[in-house]
Order: sequence, then structure tokens, then C-alpha cells
Amino acid sequence: MRIVDIIQNKRDGIKLSDTEIAYLLDEYLEGNVPDYQMSAFLMAVYFNGMEKHELKVFTEKMMNSGDLIDFKGINKILIDKHSTGGVGDKTTIALAPLFASFDIGTAKLSGRGLGHTGGTIDKFESIKGFTFPETKEELVELVNECGTGIMGYSDKIVPLDKKLYSLRDVTATVSSIPLIAASIMSKKLAVHADGIILDVKTGSGAFMKSLDDARKLAKTMREIGDSLDRKVVTCITDMDQPLGFAVGNSLEIIEAIETIKGRGPKEFSYLVKTLAAIGLQLKGDVKDLDKGRQMVEDMIQSGKPAKMLKAFIKSAGGDENIVDDYKLLPTAKNSVAVYAKDSGYVNTIEAETIGKAAMVLGAGRATKEDVIDHAVGLILNKKVGDKIETGELLATVYYNDDKNIESSKQMILDAYTISNTQTKERDIVIEIESVNV
Amino acid sequence: MRIVDIIQNKRDGIKLSDTEIAYLLDEYLEGNVPDYQMSAFLMAVYFNGMEKHELKVFTEKMMNSGDLIDFKGINKILIDKHSTGGVGDKTTIALAPLFASFDIGTAKLSGRGLGHTGGTIDKFESIKGFTFPETKEELVELVNECGTGIMGYSDKIVPLDKKLYSLRDVTATVSSIPLIAASIMSKKLAVHADGIILDVKTGSGAFMKSLDDARKLAKTMREIGDSLDRKVVTCITDMDQPLGFAVGNSLEIIEAIETIKGRGPKEFSYLVKTLAAIGLQLKGDVKDLDKGRQMVEDMIQSGKPAKMLKAFIKSAGGDENIVDDYKLLPTAKNSVAVYAKDSGYVNTIEAETIGKAAMVLGAGRATKEDVIDHAVGLILNKKVGDKIETGELLATVYYNDDKNIESSKQMILDAYTISNTQTKERDIVIEIESVNV
Repeated sequence: MRIVDIIQNKRDGIKLSDTEIAYLLDEYLEGNVPDYQMSAFLMAVYFNGMEKHELKVFTEKMMNSGDLIDFKGINKILIDKHSTGGVGDKTTIALAPLFASFDIGTAKLSGRGLGHTGGTIDKFESIKGFTFPETKEELVELVNECGTGIMGYSDKIVPLDKKLYSLRDVTATVSSIPLIAASIMSKKLAVHADGIILDVKTGSGAFMKSLDDARKLAKTMREIGDSLDRKVVTCITDMDQPLGFAVGNSLEIIEAIETIKGRGPKEFSYLVKTLAAIGLQLKGDVKDLDKGRQMVEDMIQSGKPAKMLKAFIKSAGGDENIVDDYKLLPTAKNSVAVYAKDSGYVNTIEAETIGKAAMVLGAGRATKEDVIDHAVGLILNKKVGDKIETGELLATVYYNDDKNIESSKQMILDAYTISNTQTKERDIVIEIESVNV
Repeated sequence: MRIVDIIQNKRDGIKLSDTEIAYLLDEYLEGNVPDYQMSAFLMAVYFNGMEKHELKVFTEKMMNSGDLIDFKGINKILIDKHSTGGVGDKTTIALAPLFASFDIGTAKLSGRGLGHTGGTIDKFESIKGFTFPETKEELVELVNECGTGIMGYSDKIVPLDKKLYSLRDVTATVSSIPLIAASIMSKKLAVHADGIILDVKTGSGAFMKSLDDARKLAKTMREIGDSLDRKVVTCITDMDQPLGFAVGNSLEIIEAIETIKGRGPKEFSYLVKTLAAIGLQLKGDVKDLDKGRQMVEDMIQSGKPAKMLKAFIKSAGGDENIVDDYKLLPTAKNSVAVYAKDSGYVNTIEAETIGKAAMVLGAGRATKEDVIDHAVGLILNKKVGDKIETGELLATVYYNDDKNIESSKQMILDAYTISNTQTKERDIVIEIESVNV
């Protein structure tokens, strides 16, 4: 078998055999296939895609390239809720304690932020003393202890994804739906939760800009899950504007906690309740999503979710008092208001630009080496559909270093489009589909 | 400017700017762009092609990556006749002395053989003492001395092509028409002949299997020539069966000499006369090709071409007596006949298989390192359209080492398709087009 023939078959749209896929990936992982052959293969995949069975074999091979984590012996359903990334996405922070309140465990790997999007790991690290497990044994222990197990990606889990992603990043082969799906699903499948909920973001702040692409990605991931007999629910959700009002690590922790206390932003709360209701469906507690959302609402009112969050933070070595006292979280030294320069209605808020406005303050990383400032960020005061007058508050910026404050303010102004006609904001939850549920 | 953006633009079908193409190729030649980015770019070109202006800039940049050779001060028209390669293609050996007879100079780079196709350089090296110039100064001197200047490809001429070709070879990006066109034309343009005649082979023994692809390649090369103000004539010619009867280095030298003595195979003689007539058109001696062919025929009858070939061989340090006495060429120790196993008409002769049958005897190279045996090869006795009886002579094989003789004989049998219906052989010259002529 020659690698060049495998590349040629993919180039010519000829279905690859299981052996060909296995040979390509094994030899690449071993360092026997040079990057220049793999990048040509990836570009051929960009153009010709992968069909169902090829993608199953490809993803399974990726999954098996490193450690697998299972949770045998844990007597509760474990769910992995994963988001494809966006601006202001603090969903996991609110959802994990809600799940725990219903005795649904969370078992997942999370990422750090890069570019305009933040990462769950960074957000939790706003909490003094909070540390993540570093081995699979520690992850299993954490799930046992408090029902919530979140770990950062490590080189031991799906090492092939790391190697492939680095190559895709510099060869314009990132935005291939089968490759994105294989990358996400291999990591989801390597950590064996009972159900996978995939929150596929779509809109200006998401990787899937168009609804059509989001649908394709969701479908492809469901098919992979189906081919490997896993329960998968995909939710396509809006990322045309930032999620909630808060963008920045500590600020998002606060907004997530407010949400599980019943005081969160309306749309974000609806998203969290929907995802929690899907968890109840997967657990078998409820069939109807509306009924599930009501159960979640009742649970929020009971005050239990905040307690479960405290338990999780404590298990992770963090200061659980932050749940009651936000002043214990890192706080920025300065704040400045950004005022509207026009009157009318907010038509769009370019989420990517808002993400960058927070990033330049230190809330995110432009390069992998950048150090995060957990205190800084911004709170939006107006969302899509809101009426606004010239001089009215658009957003408040929280910062420590004033180096980039002016450009951050300008980005916020640029992110907003204000016009005379009122646009209705898009529903936060656009569509839900599932397999094997 | 980032290389990944250039790859992405090509991937997305966005026209590249001159600066982008120049940056990509300059930095690649300098070793600043890794092969894995270039191979992704090449695969994107495979799918999305290059439009006229991009290809002009790309080819020009390749051409300028090494030495340029011009022939200023030489008082005759210089022509570069190039073939895309095939089996039994000894055209240059016959054409150069015909050109010289009409005071048309030949100035070109030629290749060595690889795989099933032979190379002009190897064929001439059958002649004892024959050496090719190694520097551009020596090439110019040779053109001055005898009107015929042929040199092997060197690392100094279009080094970028060598680097790109090595990468294309292992990344399934060889068979891209714009990349093939840029590769050929950059080398043709680097040696500044007054006119370029491109013999584009099509059929089972050629790289362009289909007439449609041959037409695309011919058109693309004409467009490149046109964009750089060069005279280009493309001839699409048949390679569905081997050219002439002889395949193998010494054997092809003999067939070429017989042709300029007026005793060559009919179709091959017609091809050579046509190409020579195009040379007369380019020189301005004749408008009508039929008239040109007649002038060539008359010249052959005069005996001058054989004298001009002797002059060229002498200038190159070779033994010119071979033109009169073929026994001075390397001769194989053994020969064996291959007989037909069926009666009927020859329908096809798979040229690639015939090329391999000669290669395994030592007439060609399976890998770059193989050493050529100039004496060995085969002479076909039947061509497409010929009637044949079981047991009649199909071909004679000339060999020194009997290691592969049985497989060679079997390949010859396999190459022939014999059936009851007579197929007419395709015209040797299929179509001729030109620009700036």
C-alpha cells in the first residue's frame, strides 16, 4: 500500500477501504507519513469529503490513538454536553450543577480559549484554588465524588487530533465539515459518557456562520455517533450575537451563577433549561421538553443547583464561597462606559468583534502563549431588538491595563449595528435532533 | 501576507494576486515555506485550477527561478520542438538534422527516460563518445558550431520545477493540467528559442490518455506562450500505439536515421515531415504545410539530412560513422521472436505495456538509479490495422540478460489485442493550432 495512492483515491472520489484509512492514520501517528502527504490528503478531503463509513473508521481510529476513559461502576447516567464555541458561552458552568441536582453526572473534556472565543477551563480558573484533574483516574474520582467531572484536553487523549489540527491550522483545511466532525467526535467518544449533547453554534460569532453548515455538521456528528452506537442529541443554537450579557472569565462565572439562582438573562436561561431538559430526557425522567424545562425551573427555585456548584468547586479545590460572594472573584481595577452614537434599534451585534474587544483587554488569548487576566471583560447593556437612544449605555468595559482600552471601546461600537427598523432576535434554540435516544 | 491565506484563496477559487504568487514561490524556493503548505496548495490547484493570468505569473516565476539561456547574435531561427513523451518517440533525432538542412537551428533541453517512456538524452548516448553540453555557454557554442544544441535538464534551469515536481510526485498532484503546463512551459521559456513546437501525445501510451485532456493541455500551453509573447505551435499526435516499429535506444537511433534517409516507417515519417514543415512555416519559407512536407521530402532525397546529423554527432564528440554503419552502435547478444497466438486484425497495441516490455530488458529505468542498456529493445512487426495469422511474427526482442526475457515476451503478447474486425489506425497528426505565428 502506498500513501500516494490513498491520496489519489481520495482526490478522485474513490471510497477508501478500512485498511487504507487505518494505514494512513497509524503511519502518520508513528511519524512515517510526512506532513506534506497528510496535508495533500486533508485538502482532498476538503474537496471530496468522506462518506459515512469512511468517517466512522476515520473517527474511530482517531479516538483509539490515545487513552480511552470509561466510567464503569458509576451508578448514574453521565452526560457530555459540548459546544462548538462562541462568545460569552458559559453554558457548562450553569448546566453541570443543574445536571448534578437531578443526579445526572457530567463527564467531559473542555478546552481553553483561543482567538475571539473563550474556554470553560479558563473560566473556572477564575476561582481561587480551582484545579482540574490531570489524569483519567483523577477525572473518574471527581465524577464519583461530586458527579461533575471536567478535565482539560491532554496529549494522552486523541493525540492524533492534536497532530492533525496543528497541520490543518496552517494548510487551510480547518473548515472541512467531516474533519471538524471527526475531531470533535473522536474526543467525545474517547470519554465514554452515556449521552452526548452537541450544542452547534451558528451565526456571525460561530465557526459555522451559516445555518446550512451548522445543520451539515450536526448531521455528520449524529451519523458518526450512530455508526458507533452512541446516543447523540444535537441542538443548533444562535451565535449571531454574544450569549447573555457578560463576556470575560469572572464576569461569565457570575452570570452563570445568577442563572442557576433564577436571575440569568432570559435567552441564556432558556438555553440552559433546554439543555438540562434534554438531560432529563436522556435519563428517562421526562419525555416532553416543555415539562423538562418546568422541572428545571422548579429545581432552580429550590436553591439546590447553587449548592451543587459549591460542592463541585470544593471538590476541585476552589473557594466555594464565591457562589455567595462575587467579590471573592478577581475584580478589575477600572471600568468605563461605552455610549451609543445613534438612536434606533439594535439590529446586529457582531459576536466575533465583541469577543475580540474582550480579548484585547486580556480576557482571551491572541496566541497560545498569552496569559489570561480573569478579571477583565465587558457587560453588554443592549441586545438585538432593543431600543436605544444616542448617549445611552451600550456596554461597560472592565479593565486593568489601559493599553488597549480605546481600541476595545471602538470594537464594541463597531460591533453594534443600529437602525430605524426593529429586528427580532433569532430564537436561541433553533432546532434539536437526536439519534439512538 | 500569510501562506495559509494564499492556500485558502486558491481553495475557495479566489483569484491570486501577482504578489501572492510571487511570495509563495519565492519563499518556497528559499525554503521558508514548508512542503506541507505547498502540497496543500498544489492539491487546491488540482481542484480549482489556475486562470490565464495566474498561470502566466506562476510560469514566469518558475522560469526565472534559475538560469535563462538566450542565443543573441546567432543569425538563424532557433526552434525548440518538445514532446510530452511516449513510447518509441525518436522524433528529435530525425527532426534536428532536417531542421539543420534548412538552416533552422535546434535549441532545447531534453530529458532522460523514466518508467515506460524513453528520453532523447539516453538515445543519443547510444552513440560512442557522444556527450551533451553541461553549461549554457557550451550549449550556445554547440548551436553556433553545427546549428543543433541539445542539453540535458540541469539543476540550474528552473530549479523550482525540480523541487515542485518531487513534491507533486508523492502527493498525487502530478496530473493537474495547469501544473503540467507550467512545468513544461517554464523550461521551454527559460531557453529562449524563437519558436516552440509542442508535440502533445495522446492515447494509451501518453500521460494525456484522452484527446480532451490533450486539447486542454495544448490550449493551456499556448495561452502561457501567448501571455509571454512567444510563438507556440501545438500538435496533438497519436500515442495509442508505439511510434514507429523500434523501441529501445540504439534501435530507435537506427530507425530515426533510416527516416532521414527516406526509408522510415510511414506514419513516423509523416510526423517528422509535418513537424519539419511547421519549422519552415515558422521560418517563413512556406505557408502551406503540404508544400512544406514536399520540400522536406525533397531535402531527404538530396541526402543532406544524414550529413547534417553526422556534423551534429561529430560536434558532440560522437562517432559519426554510425550514420553509415549501424554495426558501430551497441548491439544485443541475443534475439528472440514473439509469435501471434491468434488470427485476425491488430486492434490495439497498448503502448505503455510495450514501453515496459522494453524497460524490463534494460532499455529504460524503473527508478532514477537504474543503468540503461543501450543495445536492448524490440522491433514490432505488426501495427494497428495489420492482418495477422496465428504463428506469424509479432515482434522481435533484442536482449543481453535473459533474466526478464519471459516476462517481456508476455507483456508484448498482452499489449496486442487481435480481433476479427479491422480497426483503422488513428491519424498520427490529430490537430495543429498555433499562437503568435
